[in-house]
Amino acid sequence: MRIDILTVLPELFEGPFNHSILKRAQEKKKVEIHIHNIRDYSTHRQKSVDDYQYGGGAGMVMTIQPIADCIDSLKAERTYDEIIYLTPDGELFEQQTANQLSLQQNIMMLCGHYKGVDQRIRDLYITKEISIGSYVLSGGELGAAILTDAIVRLIPGVIGDETSALTDSFQDNLLAPPVYTRPQNYKGHEVPEILLSGDDKKIENWRMDEAIARTKSRRPDIIRD
Amino acid sequence: MRIDILTVLPELFEGPFNHSILKRAQEKKKVEIHIHNIRDYSTHRQKSVDDYQYGGGAGMVMTIQPIADCIDSLKAERTYDEIIYLTPDGELFEQQTANQLSLQQNIMMLCGHYKGVDQRIRDLYITKEISIGSYVLSGGELGAAILTDAIVRLIPGVIGDETSALTDSFQDNLLAPPVYTRPQNYKGHEVPEILLSGDDKKIENWRMDEAIARTKSRRPDIIRD
Repeated sequence: MRIDILTVLPELFEGPFNHSILKRAQEKKKVEIHIHNIRDYSTHRQKSVDDYQYGGGAGMVMTIQPIADCIDSLKAERTYDEIIYLTPDGELFEQQTANQLSLQQNIMMLCGHYKGVDQRIRDLYITKEISIGSYVLSGGELGAAILTDAIVRLIPGVIGDETSALTDSFQDNLLAPPVYTRPQNYKGHEVPEILLSGDDKKIENWRMDEAIARTKSRRPDIIRD
Repeated sequence: MRIDILTVLPELFEGPFNHSILKRAQEKKKVEIHIHNIRDYSTHRQKSVDDYQYGGGAGMVMTIQPIADCIDSLKAERTYDEIIYLTPDGELFEQQTANQLSLQQNIMMLCGHYKGVDQRIRDLYITKEISIGSYVLSGGELGAAILTDAIVRLIPGVIGDETSALTDSFQDNLLAPPVYTRPQNYKGHEVPEILLSGDDKKIENWRMDEAIARTKSRRPDIIRD
């Protein structure tokens, strides 16, 4: 998979993409991530990438030209399965979308900043608008990092233990059950006895009951009958 | 405000916290962010921070000792308003929670990794469990970065234009309307005429209509009557 990210803050990706799973996935050649500085494409004499909004109001708007030129130059080189715009008013990102996107070959992500991009960029270029949650961030960069992490860890061979991802929260519309490790007794607080029983069937049932109870109390919205 | 973040991957925060709004907020002394490496607190001879889970199954569990010792040492120095655990099975993070947290003095955030932390850490120390969305990431670090960004930008004086945050998506249970900037005509694609009219009242009504229409079509779940 190849992921191209368009941003005005390329430095922001240094930490998230150079450590942990994303680092290993790139080393194993499971994914190629390319960060593009939108400012490099500006034909404005001061390399400007934003301007005041028509109709007045607080906050700057990202201009069409540098973004359009950057997208055009990438599209001339290969076909993109999706050109995603990270924006608080997009469709809500969920595990199912991560699963689908993890099967694609080429994905482009555009990070909004300030008040967002000129609507015509969205109308002319964007194939999918994604919001990572019902809250506002200072830019789309952390959203793109989240999206990349959620997608890349699903590519076969990226995380060591394949079965681990399948028992994560959300993969079966249930939150994960509680987990425990040593010591068995921590200052008087014991591990539930059933987990020490060695009875796999009983343990599986207990975990399913706990997962259902936790989901019902915390996220009744995701339960499917 | 002071934010303490407990993690096994401190390097991951380099990019997100050393640029843009979070950098400026720290320079302006609006927020102090301290990153703690949980591994530094491990009394294990190999500085281990995880172990197999009781009852069997894929994925490692973060052990109690290093986390408990790190939290205890911080709590000995000051009182925390919230000790937050970032986890996919927490309550869904929304703008209202960001608004509330932005009023606090001391916040601690614990980043889960692997299959999560031993349930007893959650029972004994955590005051709030937050999920940034219905998807699974390789760790809680990006979640903590999101939470920090969403909270810090709301602290008065952090973003330049105070009125800008109030017209963001979600602050009035509506998504933001489309925005446009120069040029007026981009390859035949025009800015809506009303935005050029100079009639503030008409423009305000148009924006409200667009915001309502966009919210109804994309996020009917957040509309309040």
